[in-house]
Amino acid sequence: MAAPVALIQGASRGLGLEFCRHILKNKPLSSVIATCRNPDGAAELHGLAGQHSGRVTVLRLDVDQEGDVRAAGERVKSNFGRLDLIINAAAMLHPSGKGETSLRDVSAQGIISTLTTNTVGPLVMAKYFAPLLLKGGGGFGQQPSEKTKQHSGIIVNITAKVGSIGDNGLGGWYSYRMSKAALNMATRNLSIELGRSRPKVVCVSLHPGTVNTDLSRPYHKNVPKEKLFSVEHSVNCLMNIINALNMEKTGKAYNWDGSELPW
Amino acid sequence: MAAPVALIQGASRGLGLEFCRHILKNKPLSSVIATCRNPDGAAELHGLAGQHSGRVTVLRLDVDQEGDVRAAGERVKSNFGRLDLIINAAAMLHPSGKGETSLRDVSAQGIISTLTTNTVGPLVMAKYFAPLLLKGGGGFGQQPSEKTKQHSGIIVNITAKVGSIGDNGLGGWYSYRMSKAALNMATRNLSIELGRSRPKVVCVSLHPGTVNTDLSRPYHKNVPKEKLFSVEHSVNCLMNIINALNMEKTGKAYNWDGSELPW
Ligand SMILES: NC(=O)c1ccc[n+]([C@@H]2O[C@H](COP(=O)([O-])OP(=O)(O)OC[C@H]3O[C@@H](n4cnc5c(N)ncnc54)[C@H](OP(=O)(O)O)[C@@H]3O)[C@@H](O)[C@H]2O)c1
Ligand SMILES: NC(=O)c1ccc[n+]([C@@H]2O[C@H](COP(=O)([O-])OP(=O)(O)OC[C@H]3O[C@@H](n4cnc5c(N)ncnc54)[C@H](OP(=O)(O)O)[C@@H]3O)[C@@H](O)[C@H]2O)c1
Repeated sequence: MAAPVALIQGASRGLGLEFCRHILKNKPLSSVIATCRNPDGAAELHGLAGQHSGRVTVLRLDVDQEGDVRAAGERVKSNFGRLDLIINAAAMLHPSGKGETSLRDVSAQGIISTLTTNTVGPLVMAKYFAPLLLKGGGGFGQQPSEKTKQHSGIIVNITAKVGSIGDNGLGGWYSYRMSKAALNMATRNLSIELGRSRPKVVCVSLHPGTVNTDLSRPYHKNVPKEKLFSVEHSVNCLMNIINALNMEKTGKAYNWDGSELPW
Repeated sequence: MAAPVALIQGASRGLGLEFCRHILKNKPLSSVIATCRNPDGAAELHGLAGQHSGRVTVLRLDVDQEGDVRAAGERVKSNFGRLDLIINAAAMLHPSGKGETSLRDVSAQGIISTLTTNTVGPLVMAKYFAPLLLKGGGGFGQQPSEKTKQHSGIIVNITAKVGSIGDNGLGGWYSYRMSKAALNMATRNLSIELGRSRPKVVCVSLHPGTVNTDLSRPYHKNVPKEKLFSVEHSVNCLMNIINALNMEKTGKAYNWDGSELPW
C-alpha cells in the first residue's frame, strides 16, 4: 500500500498545527500537506518540516480565495496524485475575534466574512480535492473486509457544538453558530454525493471540545480548568475517532468523545 | 387595540405577494408594508395598493444591502412606530436559477450570493426591525391570557424542507440547503434572544411545501400535480399556522401542515 497522504487546511496555529504534528509522529511513513495563508510566517510548520525531512509540504492557501484552493489542488495533483485525508480546520469566531452577544452586534459584513471562511471554504476545498480523495489509498480510518464498503479517502470538517441547532439553548454567537450549522449541512450533502460514488469518501463533522487556542482565548476565564483541553488532548481524541471511521459512520457530527451530536 | 401592521419582505412575486394579498383580505383593518427590490416594476403590489386604499405601503428594500434594511427600518419607525409581524420571503435557489446537482457546480461566489440573500438578509432584517416588533401590539398569533406569556410580535423566516440536515437523504442543492440550515439556526438564536426580552417576540421557520412559483419552475415537471401547491393554498396553510402561534411554539421549524420539521 502507498504511504498515506494527509492535507491539513488551516495549519499555521491551534488545532490545525497539532494535527500535523500528531500525524507526523504517529503515522511514520505518511506525508503531510500543511496549508496556511502565510507560509513565510509559519515558523512552527517549517520547524516540523525540518524535523521530518521530506515528509512535509507547506502550501499557501487562503481558504477565502477559490483561486488559491484550485491552485493548491493542482499542486497536490501533480506532486502526489492522490489524498487519503483532508482536515478543514481554519475558522474564526467573527472578524472582531468575539462572537455577537446580541442582535446589536450583528452586521451583514461580519456574518458574510465568517460564513466565507468557516463554511464556503471547506465546501470549495471538497470541490477541488474530492477527485484526489477518490484516488486515495484509504490510508486513514478502518477498512472493512468487504471491498464495496471500503473508502478511498476521508473529509473531516471541524465543526463546533454551538453549531448544533437542536442543542442551542443559550443563543448568541450568530455568525459562528450559523456558519457551523451550514457546514454540518455541507458535511451531510458531501457524505451523500461521495457515498454514492465508487470508490467512496467518508465525510464527517467533528467537535474538538473547548480547546486552549487563540480562537477561544477571549472566553478562557469562563471555562473550568478541566474543561479547557490542550490541543494535544483534543487532537488525540479526534484522531482516535478518525482512525476508526468507515462508511457506516459517514454523514454525521461527532463530539470529541465519539458521541453523536444532534443537528 | 391598534390595527395590526405586517411587513412582508420579498413581496414582488410568488409567496411574498400572496401573503400581502391574503392579509389584506383576511385582516380587514391591518396595514401591510410590502418591501421589494424594484417598486417601479411591482405592478401587482401597486394594484393591491389601489384596491386597499391607505392600507399598503410599498418600500424599496434589497435584502442584500444592509443600508436598505436600515433605511426601511427608519421609515417604518417614523410612519408606524411598531410592527406585529415580519415575514422574510425573499430567496433564491442559486444565482443560476438551479440548485447544484453535484460538487462540480459549486462555486464560492454562488454560495456566498445565496447565503447573502437567503440567510444574512433575514438576520439583518431582525436586527433593524426587532425594536419595532418589541413595540408591537401582538396583532398576529394567539395570545394566552397570562400577560407574561404574551408576545408583541412575530418573525417568520420562510425556510425549506431541504434545509433540514436530518431529513436530507438526497443531497445536491448545496447552496440552497446550506442557506436554509443556517437560516434555521438564525431562527433558533432569535427565538432565544427575543424570548428572554420583555415583551417577547415569537420566531419560527416555516416550510411552504412545493409551490407553483418562479423559484421552483425548473422542477415542476418532476412534481406530481397534487403535490405542487398553488400560492393561495400554501399561504392559507401557513397563515393558519401563524394565526395559532404563541411563545410555546417559538424557536422551531414547521411544515405547511403544522408538523414539526427536524433540524
Ligand atoms: N478552540 C476551541 O475551543 C474550538 C471549539 C470548537 C471548535 N473549534 C474549531 O476548531 C477549528 C480550529 O480552531 P482553533 O481553535 O485551532 O483556532 P485558531 O488557533 O484561532 O486557529 C485558526 C486557524 O485558522 C486559520 N485561518 C483563519 N482564516 C483563514 C483563511 N481565510 N484561510 C486559511 N486559514 C485561515 C488561521 O490562520 P492564520 O494563522 O493565518 O490566522 C489559523 O491557522 C476551527 O474550525 C474552530 O471553529 C475550536
Ligand atoms: N416555491 C417553492 O416550492 C418553495 C419551496 C420551499 C421554500 N420556498 C421558499 O419560499 C420563499 C418564497 O419563494 P417563492 O417560491 O415565492 O420564490 P419566487 O417566486 O422566485 O420569489 C422570490 C422573491 O424573492 C425576491 N428576492 C430575491 N432576491 C432578493 C433580494 N436580494 N432582495 C429582495 N428581494 C429579493 C424576488 O424579488 P424580485 O421580483 O425583485 O426578483 C421575489 O419577490 C423563499 O424563501 C423560498 O426559499 C419556496
